Amino acid sequence: MDIGLLSPVSVGHDDAVSDSAVLDALVTAEIALVRAWSAVGLADAADADAASRALGWAGSTTGCRAHGLDADALAVAAVAGGNPVIPLVALVRDRVPETARRWVHRGATSQDILDSALMLVAHRAGSVIRERLRGVETALTALARERRDEVAAARTLTQHAVPTTIGLRAANWLRGVRRAIERVDAAVAALPAQLGGAGGTLASFVEIASLEGHAAAASELSAAFAAELGLAAPDAPWHTTRWPVTELGDAVVQAIDALGVLASDVATLSRTEIGELSEGSGGGSSAMPQKQNPVDSVLIRSAALRAPNLGATLHLAAALAVDERPDGAWHAEWPTFRELLRLALGASAHAVSLVQGLAVDSDAVARNLALTNGLIVSERLAIVLGPLIGRDEVSAVVAAGDGLGAALRALPQLDGVDVDALLDPAGYTGLAGALVDDATRPETGADDA
Amino acid sequence: MDIGLLSPVSVGHDDAVSDSAVLDALVTAEIALVRAWSAVGLADAADADAASRALGWAGSTTGCRAHGLDADALAVAAVAGGNPVIPLVALVRDRVPETARRWVHRGATSQDILDSALMLVAHRAGSVIRERLRGVETALTALARERRDEVAAARTLTQHAVPTTIGLRAANWLRGVRRAIERVDAAVAALPAQLGGAGGTLASFVEIASLEGHAAAASELSAAFAAELGLAAPDAPWHTTRWPVTELGDAVVQAIDALGVLASDVATLSRTEIGELSEGSGGGSSAMPQKQNPVDSVLIRSAALRAPNLGATLHLAAALAVDERPDGAWHAEWPTFRELLRLALGASAHAVSLVQGLAVDSDAVARNLALTNGLIVSERLAIVLGPLIGRDEVSAVVAAGDGLGAALRALPQLDGVDVDALLDPAGYTGLAGALVDDATRPETGADDA
Amino acid sequence: MDIGLLSPVSVGHDDAVSDSAVLDALVTAEIALVRAWSAVGLADAADADAASRALGWAGSTTGCRAHGLDADALAVAAVAGGNPVIPLVALVRDRVPETARRWVHRGATSQDILDSALMLVAHRAGSVIRERLRGVETALTALARERRDEVAAARTLTQHAVPTTIGLRAANWLRGVRRAIERVDAAVAALPAQLGGAGGTLASFVEIASLEGHAAAASELSAAFAAELGLAAPDAPWHTTRWPVTELGDAVVQAIDALGVLASDVATLSRTEIGELSEGSGGGSSAMPQKQNPVDSVLIRSAALRAPNLGATLHLAAALAVDERPDGAWHAEWPTFRELLRLALGASAHAVSLVQGLAVDSDAVARNLALTNGLIVSERLAIVLGPLIGRDEVSAVVAAGDGLGAALRALPQLDGVDVDALLDPAGYTGLAGALVDDATRPETGADDA
Amino acid sequence: MDIGLLSPVSVGHDDAVSDSAVLDALVTAEIALVRAWSAVGLADAADADAASRALGWAGSTTGCRAHGLDADALAVAAVAGGNPVIPLVALVRDRVPETARRWVHRGATSQDILDSALMLVAHRAGSVIRERLRGVETALTALARERRDEVAAARTLTQHAVPTTIGLRAANWLRGVRRAIERVDAAVAALPAQLGGAGGTLASFVEIASLEGHAAAASELSAAFAAELGLAAPDAPWHTTRWPVTELGDAVVQAIDALGVLASDVATLSRTEIGELSEGSGGGSSAMPQKQNPVDSVLIRSAALRAPNLGATLHLAAALAVDERPDGAWHAEWPTFRELLRLALGASAHAVSLVQGLAVDSDAVARNLALTNGLIVSERLAIVLGPLIGRDEVSAVVAAGDGLGAALRALPQLDGVDVDALLDPAGYTGLAGALVDDATRPETGADDA
Repeated sequence: MDIGLLSPVSVGHDDAVSDSAVLDALVTAEIALVRAWSAVGLADAADADAASRALGWAGSTTGCRAHGLDADALAVAAVAGGNPVIPLVALVRDRVPETARRWVHRGATSQDILDSALMLVAHRAGSVIRERLRGVETALTALARERRDEVAAARTLTQHAVPTTIGLRAANWLRGVRRAIERVDAAVAALPAQLGGAGGTLASFVEIASLEGHAAAASELSAAFAAELGLAAPDAPWHTTRWPVTELGDAVVQAIDALGVLASDVATLSRTEIGELSEGSGGGSSAMPQKQNPVDSVLIRSAALRAPNLGATLHLAAALAVDERPDGAWHAEWPTFRELLRLALGASAHAVSLVQGLAVDSDAVARNLALTNGLIVSERLAIVLGPLIGRDEVSAVVAAGDGLGAALRALPQLDGVDVDALLDPAGYTGLAGALVDDATRPETGADDA
Repeated sequence: MDIGLLSPVSVGHDDAVSDSAVLDALVTAEIALVRAWSAVGLADAADADAASRALGWAGSTTGCRAHGLDADALAVAAVAGGNPVIPLVALVRDRVPETARRWVHRGATSQDILDSALMLVAHRAGSVIRERLRGVETALTALARERRDEVAAARTLTQHAVPTTIGLRAANWLRGVRRAIERVDAAVAALPAQLGGAGGTLASFVEIASLEGHAAAASELSAAFAAELGLAAPDAPWHTTRWPVTELGDAVVQAIDALGVLASDVATLSRTEIGELSEGSGGGSSAMPQKQNPVDSVLIRSAALRAPNLGATLHLAAALAVDERPDGAWHAEWPTFRELLRLALGASAHAVSLVQGLAVDSDAVARNLALTNGLIVSERLAIVLGPLIGRDEVSAVVAAGDGLGAALRALPQLDGVDVDALLDPAGYTGLAGALVDDATRPETGADDA
Repeated sequence: MDIGLLSPVSVGHDDAVSDSAVLDALVTAEIALVRAWSAVGLADAADADAASRALGWAGSTTGCRAHGLDADALAVAAVAGGNPVIPLVALVRDRVPETARRWVHRGATSQDILDSALMLVAHRAGSVIRERLRGVETALTALARERRDEVAAARTLTQHAVPTTIGLRAANWLRGVRRAIERVDAAVAALPAQLGGAGGTLASFVEIASLEGHAAAASELSAAFAAELGLAAPDAPWHTTRWPVTELGDAVVQAIDALGVLASDVATLSRTEIGELSEGSGGGSSAMPQKQNPVDSVLIRSAALRAPNLGATLHLAAALAVDERPDGAWHAEWPTFRELLRLALGASAHAVSLVQGLAVDSDAVARNLALTNGLIVSERLAIVLGPLIGRDEVSAVVAAGDGLGAALRALPQLDGVDVDALLDPAGYTGLAGALVDDATRPETGADDA
Repeated sequence: MDIGLLSPVSVGHDDAVSDSAVLDALVTAEIALVRAWSAVGLADAADADAASRALGWAGSTTGCRAHGLDADALAVAAVAGGNPVIPLVALVRDRVPETARRWVHRGATSQDILDSALMLVAHRAGSVIRERLRGVETALTALARERRDEVAAARTLTQHAVPTTIGLRAANWLRGVRRAIERVDAAVAALPAQLGGAGGTLASFVEIASLEGHAAAASELSAAFAAELGLAAPDAPWHTTRWPVTELGDAVVQAIDALGVLASDVATLSRTEIGELSEGSGGGSSAMPQKQNPVDSVLIRSAALRAPNLGATLHLAAALAVDERPDGAWHAEWPTFRELLRLALGASAHAVSLVQGLAVDSDAVARNLALTNGLIVSERLAIVLGPLIGRDEVSAVVAAGDGLGAALRALPQLDGVDVDALLDPAGYTGLAGALVDDATRPETGADDA
């Protein structure tokens, strides 16, 4: 893919949105329309089948692939009219048998075909993204269970705060990913076909159906078209009501957000000084032989920094969808939507690899936890000892720093208190275990499905 | 409001997110926690009531308003620690009776209070936005019905395309707004309280509950706290899993998108040369006495141009929510979230005014429809006449321009064709009427509710 | 180009940033480093020449093109390490003669090569963009002069306001474009090579120079490398100081802004009801034979809606350039920078075509100017007649609407006033002519160059 | 300031952009116009002086402050017309003596006053931002000099890479800040007054000057107005050519980027496990007594995450500046521009505090540098030893890890090599010292000024 050289996050993972996939979807939309005309009883079934065969139709799930059309030539031809459908129609007409020809693109406007094709591409990309996210979910579930009780330092505003567990951290990543899966699921399921004709009234379809002697067929055409494409039947044409684009866009950005948190945490916790986590197969360096870089995390983060603004551009395009087809906003949407899907495809693939290979260095976890010599349970000391010795005295002891245990044992008021137990971070993890159990409970996963 | 002078879209409509509202919500969250400790059986009911009274608690729906605290002083005090909760706790403690004092902020971290307060503010703002959107929905429904069959030019890429109806245009606006209402509804209903303690483990609450002799109470506290606030009970602390913010953010941006389309269409159709629509009460000019500016549209559009990037910043903050509390991303979220809600409050208020006052100039509509001397039904001519005279001949006739009717009547092949009927735009509106009926059907509204 | 199918604005205009161009630049950077080692006296000239020949070096202006390396294979190989330089080095080493091999990538880190290659790509793309902008400038200058005195309606907030001229409108577009050219010029001229070694200290180069017996050469290497590349010599390594990227990014966004205004005005003024402007060769429609769409304007606008957020992502990446090489921000920059350059390449190419072919319909201009029956000079009436008849009376006359001339002539106070002259829009264009002259004065252009 | 409670980064630092400052600027612009009419010889000097006195004019540098107008009331009155100038004119007219009244707002349109006022606000805010950035520059210069030779670990992709120095890191921050200062300087100096009249032709001013018997005065008015305001004289009205806004916007975002890098590095290097840096006065916690949070860094980072998208919105508004005054884009610009300036005011103030108080823990620096037991000079080993023992053997030694020194000493080929010197990070800092000297040289600072 030509934009691969500077987009390593997507390379190898973005087939679902390649130019070839887009072209397949465009051809599929054209043929689905011919088939829909047949499904509502106007075009001959034989003509629809002939057209389908001529363009390589392989059923609704697959659509047209072996059509023999060339994406690059089409891209060049697309410039004059500002969209690829105009030249595509001529190419498709050329390929179908004479008798079927008049049903090609019949009644349709470019936007019907392009929007439907985009939805098809989005449906397939969305499904792949979802499967990859499920892979992340599975791996995180295992990680959270496995490390349910491994105590680690929780950090806020970069500083050690209180203890938590590796398991709870994984469970939090998991919750974010799972919520995003729900959103992607819902948005993918809602993706509608587009059929409105030149101005969104379906007038051309009504006129044609009427000419062909079955006027009522026009109102069934949209659902039939959607069925051929495996997309949702639209309530109405959505030429200028672009929520199908923005809702999937938002869901995909949310998914990348969730992966971004995971990747950012891994990058942080992989720092040489922290070393609690490492990626299974770190990336090398062209200069420094010793380096093991957290490459999956870095690439996922690069996607997370880019995705929000792509989502914003989709919203802007939606907000400026004037008239019955806008003067630039629609065209701004296509490459942005595709790039956003590419990022999600790439980020989710790297996230599977990241989580599956993630290594925990328990020694480092323990070493860091002990780094503040007990201060990590200062909050607990304030809670437990405050009533005994006063909040100020707690602060004074805490401020003394290093010899925390000794200082506490020296306090007469704490006679009989088990200072070791009090200072043990493992005794101050609250509901961490229960929260992990709740997040990783098998039925929860099932409910989400 | 101090930022009013340069934000006319929000002035007068943004009480729900003022500093005063934020302060109320912060105090409410603190008192709700005291009450929650009582609800789970640890704090004395009398103490909770005393604290509630001292800070002006007026029930879950209203929260604390008459608390007497000063937002400006708090803002200044907030800088040192980077958030307003730290100084707030001292102020609240000062005001509650001695016996209740220890329950103030007990076990909580700043983020518990601030996030819960933000959710409270968002809940109220979201509810107001939704009511305003429902006002827009009602007015658009009436408009769509009233103008169901008024034929008008549909425009694509700025050019007259085919006929449509004023009713269908209104119905399309309506569909966009209604979809956004569903999203805002769902997002508002999902807004959760936040209770996690310093590191999201609830360890402090467990420790305190244990000290107070009822360890199990800690696991009930979060739901009790949410109930006091009228917010959803969280599945788990969401310190670093920021979908409650981004999902409402996305829904609100989607709402502004829908209003942006409406406003952009009104601005366009109000142009001096087009003149199909005008706002009920246009704005004046400091220089030109004749001007009637579409001010509601202009202000709504100003919001629509700004909202997407605010939503993007929320996603970015969500994606960078590292550790157990991030080093800047969380702080970037607060003012952005508020400003986005302000825009939606203002845009929706202006949209109600816009739609309720919208005037249609039917003469202008008819004049524009006739402007191309019949070319607006060229597509129909191609469909109907193509088979009779060939596509090229249709194009030649269309290209001839002005004398379209005469040119058609002169064609021998069209003998017997009712050319006037063919050229009548009202005969080429397809399913426009049915689409309006479908969008404005009473039960549809009910389903959405 | 693989992303062409959904990006019609760039197709055919973006060679300067294709994967092939990026690969050329990467190879060029590697060879330039070998040459620089020779220029500072360490590598043998014969080795540098042999390496240059082996990779198709054709001088500093052209760099390496006929190198025979494959971009797609490199893209795939790039994923493991997260950047394409790591596998590239091996490929380049393989191709150079044995004796030159040790000088390949010697002392460099991936970022040195990748950043320098990006600057090279940016330099070439920026130069092309600038030339296209100069083409727009030339055409706008001619248009402004030609239409210097053609009076037209000025519009504010969509409504006719006062008269202006076509020439002044063109001059305003021109000023925006010219300012952007200055910014692109300055940013392109400042683009620096990057040479810092693994941590930005140039330690590897110092070490190598020292080993080779000429330690001082290291401090000359960076300038020599820049000279080979035709880039500015950097003050210092800028691994984490990313203004070279953001400053060109900002300049390019500014250029697209200026073109966006032009395109938006053309789109508006091409509306069927307005019809003052039309593109020379409008785009057709797949459904409506009569349509002539302003396709250049639509495509330019699509770029203008996308560019700002790409620029913002560059700034975000700059702000997060932590450590001595960041953990995602740098990777987020590459594809974003390229896409922004692609948009500018495409938008500027379409703008040349747009302005060169732009047609003015003087009848429509005059018809629109007369549309308000004189109200377009209301402001003038208020100025001139206010002192004579009072501001309220002026407002009353203006409000009366249609018979403005008659109403004025009927006023006894205006006896002797030349009402026709007063109502003539041509008499109320202020300094429009002088502003056009100033903007289109030949020496002004020279000053900018 | 009412939006302070959720914007701690700006509180206490944003007077220059408060509503009160905006109102002052609006009044100042109105009075400056009266004064300009006098300066070009049309209004009586006495009238201009009387008007100036009535509104509290205190000279060009200060403008009008003691005018007694109320910002909140004006904000409310501004909504109907969509901008605050319309009601302001009436208020100002009321306050000036009868004879001066007709010169108030004479010939101007709202945009003349509002844009000029925004430029005034921007000029003052920009000057304050620049002074704060200079404060950062001074403190960084001192830091870079003081720590010129303190060796520290350089990190790339989160991993230790090679040695660098604290001084070089500070010098890099310094270079970024200094470049931004240059940009802010240039943008502030270019800020022009706006005077174009209703449609950008200055027709009203010409008409008035003509009526008053001195037609030529109109062409001098714009420069006179600019002089009164202390702003640059515009080449031409820039109603729809918004580079004065975007260029300062870009410069300010660039400044925040530079501070964002600094803050991000400090936040990272303050991590509990790293501990090389700490803020002088860390922020406390509401829950954890031991915490010292890097609050300045966190707040600066919150600004850095928000600023790019505000800058993008300014560009979007610029690109959509259609007609002679746009239908929403202009209104979107005002609050965005102000918020961006607020962020820069706040971030730069916190950066001064951050850098002035920054503490370096040299023990931690040294400890981290030694953390990899010599691997931090692996690159050097590859350079020096590669030729002696082969690259593979170097890799094998490096991979062995801990006993690096012993392993090297055991190699017979290294007999005579000073292994200790080779492993000393201080011997592998390349040009770090020279780069610091170059960045902190006194004359460099002078050149920039």
